[in-house]
Order: sequence, then structure tokens, then C-alpha cells
Amino acid sequence: MANANMNCWPLIVIGGSSERNQETMGAFQEFPQVEACRLYSKFSARPTSIEGIPSVIEKAVRISIYGRPGACYVDIPADFVTVQVNVNSIKYKECCMPPPVTMAEASAVCLAASVIRSAKQPLLVIGKGAAYAHAEENIRKLVEQCKLPFLPTPMGKGVVPDNHANCVSAARSRALQFADVIVLFGARLNWILHFGLPPRYQPDVKFIQIDICAEELGNNVKPAVTLLGDINAVAKQLLEQFDKIPWQYPPESKWWKRLREKMKSNEAASKELASKISLPMNYYTVFYHVQEQLPKDCFLVSEGANTMDIGRTMLQNYLPRHRLDAGTFGTMGVGLGFAIAAALVAKDRSPGQRVICVEGDSAFGFSGMEMETICRYNLPIIVLVVNNNGVYQGFDADTWKEIVKFQDPVTVAPPMCLLPNSHYEQVMTAFGGKGYFVQTPEELQKSLKQTLEDTTKPSLINIMIEPQSTRKAQGLAATSLPLISEETLDLDFQQC
Amino acid sequence: MANANMNCWPLIVIGGSSERNQETMGAFQEFPQVEACRLYSKFSARPTSIEGIPSVIEKAVRISIYGRPGACYVDIPADFVTVQVNVNSIKYKECCMPPPVTMAEASAVCLAASVIRSAKQPLLVIGKGAAYAHAEENIRKLVEQCKLPFLPTPMGKGVVPDNHANCVSAARSRALQFADVIVLFGARLNWILHFGLPPRYQPDVKFIQIDICAEELGNNVKPAVTLLGDINAVAKQLLEQFDKIPWQYPPESKWWKRLREKMKSNEAASKELASKISLPMNYYTVFYHVQEQLPKDCFLVSEGANTMDIGRTMLQNYLPRHRLDAGTFGTMGVGLGFAIAAALVAKDRSPGQRVICVEGDSAFGFSGMEMETICRYNLPIIVLVVNNNGVYQGFDADTWKEIVKFQDPVTVAPPMCLLPNSHYEQVMTAFGGKGYFVQTPEELQKSLKQTLEDTTKPSLINIMIEPQSTRKAQGLAATSLPLISEETLDLDFQQC
Amino acid sequence: MANANMNCWPLIVIGGSSERNQETMGAFQEFPQVEACRLYSKFSARPTSIEGIPSVIEKAVRISIYGRPGACYVDIPADFVTVQVNVNSIKYKECCMPPPVTMAEASAVCLAASVIRSAKQPLLVIGKGAAYAHAEENIRKLVEQCKLPFLPTPMGKGVVPDNHANCVSAARSRALQFADVIVLFGARLNWILHFGLPPRYQPDVKFIQIDICAEELGNNVKPAVTLLGDINAVAKQLLEQFDKIPWQYPPESKWWKRLREKMKSNEAASKELASKISLPMNYYTVFYHVQEQLPKDCFLVSEGANTMDIGRTMLQNYLPRHRLDAGTFGTMGVGLGFAIAAALVAKDRSPGQRVICVEGDSAFGFSGMEMETICRYNLPIIVLVVNNNGVYQGFDADTWKEIVKFQDPVTVAPPMCLLPNSHYEQVMTAFGGKGYFVQTPEELQKSLKQTLEDTTKPSLINIMIEPQSTRKAQGLAATSLPLISEETLDLDFQQC
Amino acid sequence: MANANMNCWPLIVIGGSSERNQETMGAFQEFPQVEACRLYSKFSARPTSIEGIPSVIEKAVRISIYGRPGACYVDIPADFVTVQVNVNSIKYKECCMPPPVTMAEASAVCLAASVIRSAKQPLLVIGKGAAYAHAEENIRKLVEQCKLPFLPTPMGKGVVPDNHANCVSAARSRALQFADVIVLFGARLNWILHFGLPPRYQPDVKFIQIDICAEELGNNVKPAVTLLGDINAVAKQLLEQFDKIPWQYPPESKWWKRLREKMKSNEAASKELASKISLPMNYYTVFYHVQEQLPKDCFLVSEGANTMDIGRTMLQNYLPRHRLDAGTFGTMGVGLGFAIAAALVAKDRSPGQRVICVEGDSAFGFSGMEMETICRYNLPIIVLVVNNNGVYQGFDADTWKEIVKFQDPVTVAPPMCLLPNSHYEQVMTAFGGKGYFVQTPEELQKSLKQTLEDTTKPSLINIMIEPQSTRKAQGLAATSLPLISEETLDLDFQQC
Repeated sequence: MANANMNCWPLIVIGGSSERNQETMGAFQEFPQVEACRLYSKFSARPTSIEGIPSVIEKAVRISIYGRPGACYVDIPADFVTVQVNVNSIKYKECCMPPPVTMAEASAVCLAASVIRSAKQPLLVIGKGAAYAHAEENIRKLVEQCKLPFLPTPMGKGVVPDNHANCVSAARSRALQFADVIVLFGARLNWILHFGLPPRYQPDVKFIQIDICAEELGNNVKPAVTLLGDINAVAKQLLEQFDKIPWQYPPESKWWKRLREKMKSNEAASKELASKISLPMNYYTVFYHVQEQLPKDCFLVSEGANTMDIGRTMLQNYLPRHRLDAGTFGTMGVGLGFAIAAALVAKDRSPGQRVICVEGDSAFGFSGMEMETICRYNLPIIVLVVNNNGVYQGFDADTWKEIVKFQDPVTVAPPMCLLPNSHYEQVMTAFGGKGYFVQTPEELQKSLKQTLEDTTKPSLINIMIEPQSTRKAQGLAATSLPLISEETLDLDFQQC
Repeated sequence: MANANMNCWPLIVIGGSSERNQETMGAFQEFPQVEACRLYSKFSARPTSIEGIPSVIEKAVRISIYGRPGACYVDIPADFVTVQVNVNSIKYKECCMPPPVTMAEASAVCLAASVIRSAKQPLLVIGKGAAYAHAEENIRKLVEQCKLPFLPTPMGKGVVPDNHANCVSAARSRALQFADVIVLFGARLNWILHFGLPPRYQPDVKFIQIDICAEELGNNVKPAVTLLGDINAVAKQLLEQFDKIPWQYPPESKWWKRLREKMKSNEAASKELASKISLPMNYYTVFYHVQEQLPKDCFLVSEGANTMDIGRTMLQNYLPRHRLDAGTFGTMGVGLGFAIAAALVAKDRSPGQRVICVEGDSAFGFSGMEMETICRYNLPIIVLVVNNNGVYQGFDADTWKEIVKFQDPVTVAPPMCLLPNSHYEQVMTAFGGKGYFVQTPEELQKSLKQTLEDTTKPSLINIMIEPQSTRKAQGLAATSLPLISEETLDLDFQQC
Repeated sequence: MANANMNCWPLIVIGGSSERNQETMGAFQEFPQVEACRLYSKFSARPTSIEGIPSVIEKAVRISIYGRPGACYVDIPADFVTVQVNVNSIKYKECCMPPPVTMAEASAVCLAASVIRSAKQPLLVIGKGAAYAHAEENIRKLVEQCKLPFLPTPMGKGVVPDNHANCVSAARSRALQFADVIVLFGARLNWILHFGLPPRYQPDVKFIQIDICAEELGNNVKPAVTLLGDINAVAKQLLEQFDKIPWQYPPESKWWKRLREKMKSNEAASKELASKISLPMNYYTVFYHVQEQLPKDCFLVSEGANTMDIGRTMLQNYLPRHRLDAGTFGTMGVGLGFAIAAALVAKDRSPGQRVICVEGDSAFGFSGMEMETICRYNLPIIVLVVNNNGVYQGFDADTWKEIVKFQDPVTVAPPMCLLPNSHYEQVMTAFGGKGYFVQTPEELQKSLKQTLEDTTKPSLINIMIEPQSTRKAQGLAATSLPLISEETLDLDFQQC
Repeated sequence: MANANMNCWPLIVIGGSSERNQETMGAFQEFPQVEACRLYSKFSARPTSIEGIPSVIEKAVRISIYGRPGACYVDIPADFVTVQVNVNSIKYKECCMPPPVTMAEASAVCLAASVIRSAKQPLLVIGKGAAYAHAEENIRKLVEQCKLPFLPTPMGKGVVPDNHANCVSAARSRALQFADVIVLFGARLNWILHFGLPPRYQPDVKFIQIDICAEELGNNVKPAVTLLGDINAVAKQLLEQFDKIPWQYPPESKWWKRLREKMKSNEAASKELASKISLPMNYYTVFYHVQEQLPKDCFLVSEGANTMDIGRTMLQNYLPRHRLDAGTFGTMGVGLGFAIAAALVAKDRSPGQRVICVEGDSAFGFSGMEMETICRYNLPIIVLVVNNNGVYQGFDADTWKEIVKFQDPVTVAPPMCLLPNSHYEQVMTAFGGKGYFVQTPEELQKSLKQTLEDTTKPSLINIMIEPQSTRKAQGLAATSLPLISEETLDLDFQQC
């Protein structure tokens, strides 16, 4: 029911409940489903008759995309499937218009512009809301015209390309910690942004919050300016301010210098880690090679713990709305569903476009059976399982053998370990896709090349890495890289 | 915690739950109160510690007034009252800023203006949302500058005064039914406005919806234009359109003529009813006399069935946010609580201002014991009980006597009858207020005069009316007024 | 729908929701009522068709009375009132059979009997569940045959008459605190029984829990024996044990002696308080005179703080299921509804039986308007308002005058004070009942006598007492009665 | 926390919510989890402190196993994991006693016995509740002593062995439809038993309901006798009646004859289907061979549509509580979790015992990734995937190829088809288990033999069957077996 003109994808779950005339009798799967979905939905309802279905669906679609987007639930009792009604009794409803656009108050926009102009150490944070609002063009112009440093949130990546000169992701912690003015474009001050509070921020940092949702404004901090409205429209309003009275942040400022130094040293540290030649590989080596071959227009789906966190810093997005990860709620198991949905969209509108799904081994375990679906529909998906034999970290194979040999794994094996050397690639080949088991950079390069060239089948590359591989170990003590100062903690701060 | 500058009144309910360390043990009044309040609140939470109270209260206040306003619930466990914490561990929070203002998209405003300009039979509907948004000045200017007819919803009354020349309340049904363009200022198309659907509206009427809540737009109808934003800000945007290119709706149009004719005949019919001299009085007589003496600046509170419906058409509001009635939900029993709240505000900011509370006898029955509170705080409240001995209608006293004499009232008396001739005024005198029992227009006039002059005590006037008195009976068959055509149905349509 | 044979009263609330075809459109009072009642009901449902009503009602009635009784909610949408169906399509349902009876396991009953036989300081606690189960005859036999001391909970009063020689209510705290074996007949170890924990109990007290609800057994304590079953059936099982091998607890035991001494001293203290002649009266004086004239067969309804607590110790019940008070949840405002329900039952089955409703002034304030209902149906109810001008305690009239005169009562008056000398009796006379305002023991005696003799009308006696009158003040410091040792704390322990 | 003596397994879910001091701030995975679990749990709570954990856990365990068993949820906020408390402040709680046992009223037991004695066509139905109550011995005695026919519900299978001479499963529909007295041992009259209503039952059938849950009694029918109590205890009470006055149902009755004839013809039909030698195999052939080799003491887990339904009629249970299937709620995806739980129990208490998990291919798709867990712990599980390439039925491979070749599978393939010839066995071998792909009876026999002999590894046998294979098709038209009359519909009636 998506309106082709609206660029919006409503999220409606249609559920089926028992036959109405068996309710309270112990019907098959009898349950108060509308009520059960209440906490999880923006709108949850059951049409009370066949005739009433169109208007409830219209309402669900509209509510899903108007205002802050959200999922809606519509319940269809089993007997609706077979009951017959006079077709004339049904009132069809046209799909709603595209979501209404709203703008910030003119005076607040003025104030915001003046706060930005007076900033000594400014920072833009680009959130998921900016992507939903299709604000890419206006935000990019603002970044470039005013020469401001910016930072995307996990799903804000790609609104402005990650390889843009003004992107300071590689100095994320420093940027957040020392900025004196932060403009939030559809980015909430929740756990992902450390609630906007010290010590991760200056106590007197001035936040300019731009959001479509009034109730989000002022959460956890007292903002200097709030701009309530459609994020694209507000970005344009801000741009107009800087068109009227041109201004740009000095590219030679101390703040830019400090950020660039930090980015440089972080990038060097990460490059050093990526270039390690000892086996098994570490995360950095893996992602370095993946990034080398990543198609610029792919959908990038990701979930996992270290896999998602480190992957996010190493794998670049160039297009808005092309990254899907565990998001604010941080739930594992959603990635493969996301990949399938993205692949159906890709298949439909741009043949040749690929979906790259970067999964931790534990994350893959939640929904790996989706390989059957992927093969059944022959979807253009490449799954990469970054396999460290566990959640966060696993035992190495030798230790594992000892455990299995002498003791009872049920009680002895740490709960976060998985089976060592699981051949996840065979879960793909079981259904006719291609599978690769890779242990070296060369094997990784080669398998990536092959699978990207051969577009006939979905594939899965099972990439074995060092079981104890973690961010911290690499960044600090374990590696004792003399070049990496305490600033490397930045790497730790790269949370989802 | 209301911010003096913000003109906003957050609605926070603070509840008390059992001591935390007795939870699940069967504590006194143990209940999951946060959960129980979920369906009724915009936000429902319990601080998890004494230290956390300020931030939860700040959030409740902010959510209550930001976006579409709503009530919030904050739960305080009993042990919080006595537990001691280090005062330095508490992080005080400043009250939030006034609600952020948002504006409609410029192009949509243009479109709306052009739809209005092209209207043949335009109508403005002014809702509660316009009152909440303090949009009175801009909407009044728009009405006057463009010479447009307007209609307030029950709690939109007073945003533009009811006695304004452009108010077409007296032709409400006709105005809604024949308008070709309707501009809704913060008025929802729910049951109060007959869902915006035929036969109460033209099938092709063009709605211009102005609302602060995106999800409200498009409910039940497909609007011609939607203007999402703060209603005052949007009214101003519209005004600017008509400032740029001045336009006014021709005062000599057929539409205006038709509306005025209808208003005239309805007013005549209602005047005729009001002037009936037979006793007991009817609703129209009562409200006529009340209106005669009603102070222009009073808060008008009302609840009941016919009392609220007919009263709304006869009693005029001159100030915004000075009418409080059963509202969208239509729940009885809320009026006296509203009156007390309004009186506390009045007492605080404008000595001498009165609260006039017009209650049906059945409505009064829900919360009549509030007379004790009213007398305890000596609040400037005048309660009028319009007493027809029942809900909708009651038995007359003679029939009642028969029932009592010969039969069992429990099984025989219709459930909607109340005790005849209840002396509600004695519920007021029981607590030291003044009470009046009035049966004639003269007694009514006199008691109103007395109580308005004597500001030392609260008072209650118990006004006896014809038990069978209803809208329909008066308007049509029962009165068989030859002058009143079928158009008098307008009176019927005046719902809350 | 109560089955005449079953002696059970199902509690079903029938609610009305909006028309089904307007759901989600903003219908009048649209709300998810079944969901909203979930937390408060044993069963909450809406029939999905007219045809389905009988089976949902049957289920609600059955669930309400089978197992642990509870209230059920049945929702009837507005359109069900007018929709027409073929009468043959409706499947009528017979009312369910009386609740099934269940018995405790034979070996557990044996064990319980042997634990009782070996008790040094035994105590029976008779709860509301014993009353619901109609266990009066068997429990009384057990008490008398085994010569055991017993204690009723608030709504367990009357299962065995309060004036029974074995009732140790007047030594409640001591009995609970020093018993070594406590048999609970349908009495839960919640806040009313201090959770069954020290210091209110011996740490090694052996509980024998008898309950109809398995999940209740073991709450807060580890019982010595649990007897799951219908409380009457289990009482009979126990009795059979003591029939087989007769046993009785020695009436000359130290424990009986200790309890009797304590009862004697407490009764003396309370008598002393009751006989005080200074005015205003105190609680004890009032209840002493009420008890003197209380009809033995009346329904006794009570709510309030001190009024309910002290009243419970002074006013005696002689019949089971004839006391209704605020109960476990301790909610105020329920008393007058209880009184009306009891009066309808009384009127129906035993003409002349009276309902005596003992209300604190604050409790009366919640539902005092029910006087209209009481008068409308001319119900045989006598309301006593024990009026101390406040909740727990109120200001005296002089202090109040000062407050009113010089200061702002809104901010200065303590929140628990009410209007002094409220004439609640006029709330009754307003509707045609009789009212009395009494300030002395003589007036109280006289008004009680009059109202008990004249059965033609409901009445209300407004009894003024000392505003600072409390249990503690009377029991200890304030009165400094030399005869009352620390044991008088017993009075404090008499909670609802 | 299971008490070794109580033979009861509480079902407690421990969940983790966010840190308490971040609540309402947008914490990681912040959600009202206790509230969200309410509808799904018998008890849902969060301890309010570390000190309170033992008592909440004790309560959850107790509620889970006392009365009708159910799952409970206990929420542990993240900060509880790291917070430190004085160990002495924690009050440890002993585990509760085994569930209290309750018996039916003696007179009701008498009545039940007399109704059974007078039955012309009696039937016992043995439900899951009988298994939970460990009633196997007493019910078997009753069956044998009184020579009564019995029928197990899906999870009541094994309480009395399926191969018992009195088991009439093979004539299920006829037995239910023509019985005049039906005794339900812990079996609910929900959809699984067709609500106890005609036409599946005689309109005047007399039900004797035996259940632990009072509210279950009288659901959908008006029973002749209700016996509320522990099902084992009540079975014993009934047995005592038939010990006192011995009675047995005549083995040569017409009813027994009729049932045996029906069983014979049904068994013949099913044998005929099982012996078909055309390939691919049908369900009956598969289950015939599985049954041949099924270890008598295995746990049998099953889920699927036809797989579960037909498998239930063909695969026999000999021990109580050894069958786990989708149960009343009929949810797919639960089987492998059940298998893992059963295997952990088996491994612990009887080495060598196997878990046989019979899965439809679609059911396996929900949780197939559990193969990793099964291999990690090397659990004694044999998974049989009965693979018809779809839900209910799938396309055959040729049709599939056509679809894939010429059209778009996304839009064309019926939603209930899965990928043809999925190699589910490779999902097992991917993790080191054994896998078999079998297409003929011989391959099936051989693989079963091998895997049962080799106990070193878990295994999965992927059994290919006729994609259009269904119950109906086989029973009636499709096979046109002349010997099978309309009575074969019995096979259809074998629902889960």
C-alpha cells in the first residue's frame, strides 16, 4: 500500500487471531492479540467487520508514516478469511497523502543559526531521523557551505557519505567530548549518544535539537535551542539563514586541527591492526578487506557485538537509508529479516544492487534458517559471518577440545562460547547457495571477489577470526602498540 | 511547577504505591499502578530512587505540555516518604522551556489560502486545540479580515467570542451540512463533529485540517490540505497570506444570507421557548435568565445531558479557555473537580472572578460531595443544578408518588429517574454555603442576582424544571410551534 | 442470575463500549474497555455477537464464583442494544451448578490434627474465606469441641460470633505474637496479618494454612501444614479427626490464662475510655453506645481510618457475612455502595433487617451523594458519620476559625483536615431521610433509639467527636491512664 | 531450584532489564518488561532490591508449580549484576514444599462412580493434566479394573501406554461421537476436543470433569459431575469406589465391539497406506518405519502440521510425560527447545535415553539453528525432518523448476511452498553432527538403525516425502482405496 510518490514505507504487521465465535471457548491460538501488541505498536486494532477492514488498514498505514514513524498492528480474525459480504457494502479507502511537513518557528531558527555562528568547537550529529526525512541534500549543503565537522549515528551513516572530508567519525569520542555546540539532526540523546551527559560531553555544551517529535526535545539535557519540525524542512530553514548571511567555520581552527590529529592517529592505529599478518585474523584485518571490495551502492546490514561495533567504524556508507543494524533497541536476530526486506526492494528497483549482511556468529545463530528463504527467492544477498566462536569472545579450539574431553561442557563451558569452527557456510550450501570458509586474508579477498562477480546465487562467507579478538585487547594492553596513546579509547567508544 | 512564562498547565497525577520492600507480599494497596495508568496517560513511570524523582517529574511535566497535551502519571512508593538520602546526591532539574513551536510547510499554507479563496460556502471550525495553542488573536483577525463564518466546538467556545457577528453557532447543522470548504483549527473529526462524513456534510466538502498532531490528519476523511503545526503559528501563516494578497469573503453572499436566515429562525424558536411562562420552567427559560446575568469573565463549567447540550447553545463564552465541559470523552462527574481547579486559578490571579458551574441533576450526583471542599476553601463558585428529576428526563412528582405508593420502586422505577424534588441546595447549606430552591423565573432571577452580589460564600441554586423537558419535545411535536420548521433540528444537532 | 440454591453471589460488571462500526474513528467514549479491566478482573471479555452473549455471561458468572471468587467484566458495545437477531439463533445457557467442593488430602489433615494436638499455645484465625465458604457451623463446632481460642480477621468477624467465650479479639496482638501453632481458615498472611513474620509472631510459629487457592499457600512463611480445599469441607475433615480421637485444649492452661488476663485489662482500658464524660466524645464512648443498641442481625458496613479500626474492636458481629468493610485493599468510598447492595438483599429476604453503616467523615465524603439513591429506594439503612473534622484527625473549630480569619486555607490548612462541623445529616435530609446532629452521649442514645424504632425512612446520625481523638493519644500519653500498661499497644495493633 | 522430592519442574523465565537509574532516559533495551510479560505469565515481577531476590524467586517457583502449573517471569535489572550488598542483609528462602494435594468431595465421587456404572457407552479421556499430576498408576488401574476404553489427548499420551488393549485412539472420532458418558482426566474441552459440542459429541453426553482448576469446570458444556482436585488423588478416590463395590464394563458389549471394528478398519487403512511402495514415500510409510525402531523409553518431541497430526496417530508413547508437542496453543518453533530441555534431563538421569524429535520441514525452519546448540553440548537427540517441501503441502520439484525458470517466484510461488529438496541434514553436519538424506523406505530403515546404534553424536535424518501428501488425499479420493469407507474420516479428525 506504499504510495509511490511518498518515498515512505509503512510498517504494518497483519496478524491472525482465532475465529470470533469461538472466543472465550478455548479456540486455536486464542489470545488477546490487539492488547498483546499494544506496548509494541504505534497503533493496534482489529476491524470489527469485513466492511471495516479498509478504514483500519488506511489508518494503520497513515499512523505508521505520519509523525514519528512506527510499526502498527492490525488483527484479522480467522473467520474473516471465509466470511462473505456484499462487495458493495465495503467502503474502499484511498491511500493517505504523503506525510505532512512541518517547519520550525522562524525565530528559533534564527537563534539556532546565531548559536552556531558563535560556536568555538561545533559539531553536527546526523541521526536516523535525518535519513527518514530524506534530508541528505540539505544537510550535505549545510556541512559543505559552513565547513562544519559532522558525525553520523549508526543508522544516520550515509546521509552524508562516510568518506566526506568533514566526517569526524574516526575522532568520535573527542568530537562529542569537547564540542561546545552540538546540532542534533534527528538523533536522540539516548544510550547511543551517552544521554548527552558528562563526562562524555562538556557540562556546558549547547545542544540544538532538531526533531519531528516534540516530546523528544529536552530529554536528559536542557537544550539551548529546540527546532521542532520535519528534519529536512528545518535543515533547509537553517541553510537559508546561512544563505542570507553567509558564514563558515574556519577550516584552520584549532578544533579542526585537533579533530584531524585524532582522526589520523586513530586511523593509523586501526590500519596497524588491520595489517597484522598473524593468524587467525583480527576484526580490523577482516573489515579492511571487506571495505576494499564493498560495492558503493550496496545495502549494508549488520548485527553482532564487536562485529557490529568495529564493523561500523571500518565499513563505509555512501548512500542514505542503506545501513540497517540492530538500532536503538540493540536486539539481535533482526539482521537477516532486514536483509531480505532490503533485497526485495533492491531486486525491484535496481537490478544488480547487492545486500551485504555482516553478522557476528552469535547473531547469525538467531535467524540463520533464513538462508532457506534467501535461496528460495534467490535474493542478491551476501552474508559475512565474522566467526570468533562466541558472543563477545569464544574459546580457541584447543581449549575447547580439552573442555569436551575431560569435563562436562554443560556446566563448564562459559555461557558465551559457541561451538568452535562452526561451518555456517554449510547452512547456505544446504539450500543451494554458495559457501566459503576462509581463514586468511587471501582467502577472504578471493571469496569476496568471486561472490561479487557471480550474481547468480546468494552466498555466505564464514570468516574465522581470533577467538579472543576484542576491541580493548587490540587497542591497549594485549597488543602493546607503542604508538597508540590513551586516545585510542576512542575505539572503545564506538558503540552502536 | 508550571512555568510562569509558558502559559501552560501540565497535568501530572502523582500517585502513591506500597512500600517497595513489601511488593509481592500482599502489601497495603499493592497494585501495579504504573501499568494500570498506561492506557490513560501520555507517560506513566515510577522513579527508581529518591535521587531520580526530579528527572522523572521534569519529564512528566515536559511530555504533558509538549506536542499534543496529555495527562501523565508519576508513582511514588510509600517508603519514599520516609527514606533519607544525602541531599547532594539529588540532581535538581530546571523546569523545561515553553513548548517548541512548529509551523506548516509554506507551500501547504499557500495551497490552503487558495482553497479558501475559491470557496463558495466556507466555514471555520474552531476547536479546543486552538484554545490550547492561545491562537485567539490570530484566528479572530482572520475571521474579521476575511469576513468568514465560524463555529466553535464545545471547548473551542470563546476563542472568538460567541457573540461575534460571524459566529454561526445558531445555524450549526446547516453550516456543517452545506459548507464546501471547512477549515478545522485544532478540531478533530470525531463523534462531536459527526466524523466529517455525510449526511452531516457534503460528500465533496474540502477539509483544511490544522493540527499539532500529525496522526490526527486524515482521520475519517481525505483532507484537501493538511497544515501540521502549532495552531497559533499556522493561523498567523494563513493571515500573512491574506495580508500579502488581501481577500475577503463577500458579506452579501448567498451563503451568508442563508446562514443568517437560519440563525434568525433558530434564535426566534429558542426565544419562544425561553419565553414560555407555564411552570415548571423548561431548559430555554432557565438558560435565558442565566445568560442575562452571566458575568462576561466567568469560568463556565458544565456537564449533564440536555443541560450541557442546550446550555452550550444558550450560554455564551467571551474568553478563550474559560469553558470546561465533559469534552470528547463525555464522562460525567468531572465538572465539580474542574470548577475547583478553575476557582483556585481564578482566586490566585483575578480576585472577584467567578466560576459558574452548570450541572444536570444526574451529573451533580457523581461528585456533589465536593460542596464540602468548595466550602472548606471558600471558593468563588456558583453551582446551578438544572433539576428535571432524572437522566435525560425524569418522572413528574405525581407519577412518582403513585409508583412509591403501590409498587416496588426497585423494579418498577425506570432506571433513569432520580428522586423527585431532591433538595440539592441543602447539600451546599450543610457545609455553610448558600442554597436556593427556585421554581419560577422570578425566583431564578432573584437568586442569581443575590449570589452574584454576595461574594463571601459559595452557593448552589437548585432549579426545578419540567421533568419531561427535552430538546426534541420542545422543538417539535410537544410544543407544536407553527413557526418552527424542520430546520429546528439544528437544536438537536447541538451535541457536546 | 444468582442460583437460589447455591448461596453464592457472582460479581459481574456489565460495561458499555462504543458502537463497533465507529471503533478507531473517535466514537463517543471509545476505549479498549476489556483491556482496561484486565488487571482488575478475574475474567474480562466482550461477546463478539448478540448470539454469543449468553455463553459469555455464563462464563463470567461461573468464573466469578468457582475457585477463589472475584469480579468479572463483560463488555456490551452500544450497537448491541438496538441490533436485531433471530431469536432462534441465540443459544441460551443454563446457569452453572454451585461451585465444586474440594477437600484436603487425608494425610495432610491427619498431620494438621496432630500438630494442633501438640500445640502449647494454639490459635485459630478465621478469615473472610471461611465466611465465603459458609464454614460457620463446622468451625464453631471445632472451636467448642477443642476449646480453642480464635481470632477473626475484619471480614471474618461473625463466622463465630464475636461474643463467643473463645474469641480473643481483645487480646489480638498478644495472641498472634505468642501462639506456637496458628490455624488459618481462609485468612491470608498479607499486611492485615502482618505477613506472618516476626516481631509480630514467634520466629518458629507453626502455621497450618487452610485455603481454597493453592497459590496462596506458603506466601511469606513456610507453613508446617497446608490444607488445600474448600474451607468448610476442610473444617469438617478436621472435625472428624477430633471426633475419631477426641481431644481438647485444656481451658486451664497458662495460655488461656494469659490471654484472658490481657483481654480483661484491654477491655477495662477501653471501658474506661468509653466512660469518659468530657465533651466532645471520643471514639470509645461513641462505639460503646452504638454497640448497646446494635440489632444482632444487622448488616454492619464500615469504612474510615480510626473509625473503622476502633469500631471493629468495639462493634460486635453475630452472623457470618454480615460485616462489609474496606477489606484487604483498604479503599475508601466503597462503604455506601456495599450498604445499598446489602439493603437490597435484606429488603428482599428479611423485612425489618437493618443495615448500619459506620463511616468516618472523610470516608463519607467519597460517596455521600448515595443518600439520594438510598432515599429514592427508601432503603433500610442507618448511616453513622463519626465526625472528627478530618482524616485521622482534624483541627478543632477554634483553630480552624483562626486559620480562616488570618491566613490562606489553601496553603496553610493541613491537607488532612476537613471543614469543621460539617452537617452531613443535612445531606440525608436534603433527600427526605432523617438526620441527627449529636454531640453528647445522651443525644446519641436518643437518636439511635428513635431511628431504630422508626423503620419508615433511612437516616443519618452525624456524631461529633474530639478532633484530636486517636487511638494512641487515648491509649497512652494523652490520657495517662495509670491502669493501662504497655500492653495497651494491643489497641494500636487493631488494624483493618 | 527444583525440589528433588517433588517431581515438579517449575518454569521460570529470568529476564534482564536496563539499569534502574537510566530508566526513562532511553537506556539500552529499556522496556517495561514485567508489564509486557503479564499476559503470558502466571506471575510477573521484579524484585525491588538485591535483598528481595530470594523471596521473589521463591514465590515464582511456588506459583509456577502450585495449582494449575504455568510459567512465571522474574525481571532482574542490569545494575543488580554489579551492585554490592552486605551478604547478611539477604534473607535466603528455602524452596517451597511439593504442591499441596486436594481431593474431590466424597459425595461427588460417589455420584461420578454411579454415573459411570450406568453408562452404556463409556469413554475415558486422559489429558495432559493427568500426566502433570503423575496419575498414571491409578488411571491405569481404573482402566484395567473396570475394563473401560480410553483415549489420550496429544500430551496425555503415555499416561497409559498407547499400545494398551483398551486404548481406542484408532477409533477416536467414533469414540467421542457416540459415547454416552465421558470422563475427562485433566483434559480441557477446548478446540483439541472440539469444545465438547455436537456434532462431534452426542447432544446428551454426560461429562464427568476431573480437573485441578475450578474455573475450567463447566467450560462450554454443563457437566453431569465435576470433581475438583488433584487428578491423581481423584483417580484414587474413584478407584476406591470400584474397590468397595466392584464393577466392570462388559468387554463383550456392543460398544466395545463397535469400537474394535472401527479400530480394525482404520488400522487396516493406515497399514495399506504405509505399505505403498511408490516413491516418494507418504507420511504413513515414514511413520511406520520410524515406529518400528522407536526406543520404548525415548522422549518423543513433535511439531508440524500433518507431520504432527499423522505422526501422533502412528508413533506410540509408552511412558507418561515423554511426549512434548505444540500443545494447546499450537505454536510452531518450540520443538527443538523442548528437545534440548528433554535431552538435558535425559543425560542427567538415564544415560542412553534418546530424544526423538519429529519435525515438519516448515516447523524445523523456525529453530533449525538449534543444531549448533545440540552439537555444542553433544546432546542425545535424533531429529527427523519429514520433508514435503512446504507447509501442509509443497510443490513437487518439477513444477518448482518451471516456476523458477519462467516466472518470478516472489509473486508466483504459493506462500506455503518451501525450497524443494532442502538439505536440512547439512544444517546438522555443518556443526559436526551426522546427517542423512533419505528417499526410500530402505534408506530410512538403515539410517535409523545406524543412528540409534551410534550414540556418540546427534543426528538429523531428512526424509523426503510426496509433496502433495496429505491426510485427506490419502484417505479418500486420491488413493481411492476401495476398502476405506467414509469412516476413514477418523483420520482427519486426529488433530493436535
